[in-house]
Amino acid sequence: MPRKIEVCLTPALLDLYEIDNSIVVVIDILRATSSMVYGINNGATAIIPVAQVEDCLNYADKGYLLAAERNGEVVEGYDFGNSPFSYTADKVKDKTVVLTTTNGTKALHMARSKASQVVIGAFLNLQSLCDWLKIQEKDVLLLCAGWKDQFNLEDTLFAGAVVNQLRKSFVHFDDASVAAEDLYMLAKDDLRAYVGKSSHSHRMVALNIGEDVKFCLQLDICEAIPVLVGDALVALKQA
Amino acid sequence: MPRKIEVCLTPALLDLYEIDNSIVVVIDILRATSSMVYGINNGATAIIPVAQVEDCLNYADKGYLLAAERNGEVVEGYDFGNSPFSYTADKVKDKTVVLTTTNGTKALHMARSKASQVVIGAFLNLQSLCDWLKIQEKDVLLLCAGWKDQFNLEDTLFAGAVVNQLRKSFVHFDDASVAAEDLYMLAKDDLRAYVGKSSHSHRMVALNIGEDVKFCLQLDICEAIPVLVGDALVALKQA
Repeated sequence: MPRKIEVCLTPALLDLYEIDNSIVVVIDILRATSSMVYGINNGATAIIPVAQVEDCLNYADKGYLLAAERNGEVVEGYDFGNSPFSYTADKVKDKTVVLTTTNGTKALHMARSKASQVVIGAFLNLQSLCDWLKIQEKDVLLLCAGWKDQFNLEDTLFAGAVVNQLRKSFVHFDDASVAAEDLYMLAKDDLRAYVGKSSHSHRMVALNIGEDVKFCLQLDICEAIPVLVGDALVALKQA
Repeated sequence: MPRKIEVCLTPALLDLYEIDNSIVVVIDILRATSSMVYGINNGATAIIPVAQVEDCLNYADKGYLLAAERNGEVVEGYDFGNSPFSYTADKVKDKTVVLTTTNGTKALHMARSKASQVVIGAFLNLQSLCDWLKIQEKDVLLLCAGWKDQFNLEDTLFAGAVVNQLRKSFVHFDDASVAAEDLYMLAKDDLRAYVGKSSHSHRMVALNIGEDVKFCLQLDICEAIPVLVGDALVALKQA
């Protein structure tokens, strides 16, 4: 089957894509999907993405960790937000985390109602994700979470990195794939410098989370691919 | 005033931008805004963009030229579509053209209800447009018409060309501006080759309008800047 790869630059455009038979990769590099990959890689039993801060409270008496981020900050009263440093093995191993974030969890919820399968991508699991996508018999939609429905650089760069790795395995590429790949090729030798040009990066500096940004731009320190099963992200089991 | 420049990559994202006090530049390089620039530059009295093919018929008894394009082709029964070669002086001088196109006229209608001012951009009038934008005391939104609400390369490249020229005159740039400028810098030495990577370009080849594409990628052969006044695009009068 001549497979197709497309890049949806923001969740606001998701309705334009036919994804019934596609694998959707949700991308929110700073920081939701990076932390999801890291948490599942570190042995979290599951991460349950919920849309609203209040939804976390439905899980309050189940012994789960409750994580909530809005506008880049931990919501008051919650265990933590979406900093990857909160998803280390000592904190999350064998635990279930309920998580809501500004952009990433919204994108996840939009995708899951339509897609054949929803997985999570980040620079942290780039190679592992691409190796798996190559051997599936499915089209791929790379869904950038963006920032409040707007385009952002870091999610687009990651989409471009995936396109670049999958180029030989796929036949059809949309214009957004072409642009994303070219931007990644420009940026790849110094991702941090390039992401430094982004508006979100300026927000990150204001929030004093430069170490988070540095962490999230590391390549291939994780093997795990979180996959959505029912309401929860769990580690994909490969044959 | 520290001015802001933003790029709206498709009309589907226009609602995310506050443009009450902004100049909106509508961009549909292949081919609507290229033809509008060329037609106004060649002395057309006015070009009236309408949303629907049927709307053209409201102007049928006024002696106007009726132009209608859908999916890249002239609609049957109309004088012409949006090929720039239909907008030469011998055809349009002192005439009014009523025009509907797949993407460009839709973007125009969306912008005009909200923006402070709406003007038309194309590679054909790049320098003239940028010289004028530089001396306005307004923020600028570059609105890419895209293809059926999806991102496209050629409109983004033009937006990037404008960003590149205005960089020293503006202070704030969104992520889409950064990406568009970098893509333009990659593409500018051979725009045709780069646009050849786009999906729309493949449609153009199928329609046998390669000469149109070549024409629309010329720089600075026009001075005119079409501006929306009421329902009609007319030549902007500069002091």
